[in-house]
Amino acid sequence: MTARRHDPQRRDRIVDACLDVIAEVGVAGTTHRRVALAADVPLGSMTYHFTGMDELLRAAFERFSSGASERFEARLSVATSAAEARETLVDVMLNDVFTTRSDLVLTHELYTLAARDEGYRTITEAWMRRSRAVLERHFDPATARILDALMEGLTIHRALSTAPFDERVVAAAVERVARG
Amino acid sequence: MTARRHDPQRRDRIVDACLDVIAEVGVAGTTHRRVALAADVPLGSMTYHFTGMDELLRAAFERFSSGASERFEARLSVATSAAEARETLVDVMLNDVFTTRSDLVLTHELYTLAARDEGYRTITEAWMRRSRAVLERHFDPATARILDALMEGLTIHRALSTAPFDERVVAAAVERVARG
Repeated sequence: MTARRHDPQRRDRIVDACLDVIAEVGVAGTTHRRVALAADVPLGSMTYHFTGMDELLRAAFERFSSGASERFEARLSVATSAAEARETLVDVMLNDVFTTRSDLVLTHELYTLAARDEGYRTITEAWMRRSRAVLERHFDPATARILDALMEGLTIHRALSTAPFDERVVAAAVERVARG
Repeated sequence: MTARRHDPQRRDRIVDACLDVIAEVGVAGTTHRRVALAADVPLGSMTYHFTGMDELLRAAFERFSSGASERFEARLSVATSAAEARETLVDVMLNDVFTTRSDLVLTHELYTLAARDEGYRTITEAWMRRSRAVLERHFDPATARILDALMEGLTIHRALSTAPFDERVVAAAVERVARG
């Protein structure tokens, strides 16, 4: 027991491993046993650090969405004008969002979980709020809200399409919405 | 065997039951046994009508997305001008999309499946194409594509939010994009 208490990174490792397991087998297939194995911790660690699967899934998806928000904030923070912010948004949509299979899968696993269980909408709500707060540094609140939804729809449609994606559509969309 | 061959609605019933099972327990929990039970058919029927789970899931999600497309087409077909089409789009987003838990869950189950397995993107692609074709009766192709993505993002954000939704944002978004 003492060893466990002195492994402050263990909880972190479990949360990271949980995201790997979700990306691999989905929320439905994620068990304490699989996560413990992936994190290389004894199964008993799981109940020491988390009251149950709900707390673990929350911690995992909060980490995942916070990471995405931080990257988005970092990208947008460099823009010094609305025009630069619009350009950056286009670039984020084309080059940052869903660039890995894991990001694409984890986002949709979270949305499916939140679609099934309202309790998880606090996580999607917090993610949307943070994205809008970043956008509101450059755009009015209504524009920020529309741009956030537009990014969502365009990046999902691009990722789940089988046809070549006309990148000019993204710039045109941002221009039209941002004109306000 | 003879009785089976003379039950032409059996395949249909299985596909409908499959959607019910997916809505209830998710793609990951959907088994031939559960679907057979929900459809009230012998387990042997499943392999008679479907080569495997992939064919069954495809048939189920094709039916689900076709149904959504048909409802969208029916709504938009009534519009006689671009202005009416814009109004209808706003109304569809606020009153038609994700009005049932089952629609919300099934859409996200499909997206998660397509995120994991490119093979299922033929279904999401066909759905997007059909939505855009409907929109192209009233808008140019680029506007149709942006409006389709906008609908996706706004309806997902509204459904997965915990805060009251300002409905005026939807009308403002459609106006801005449709101005072209």
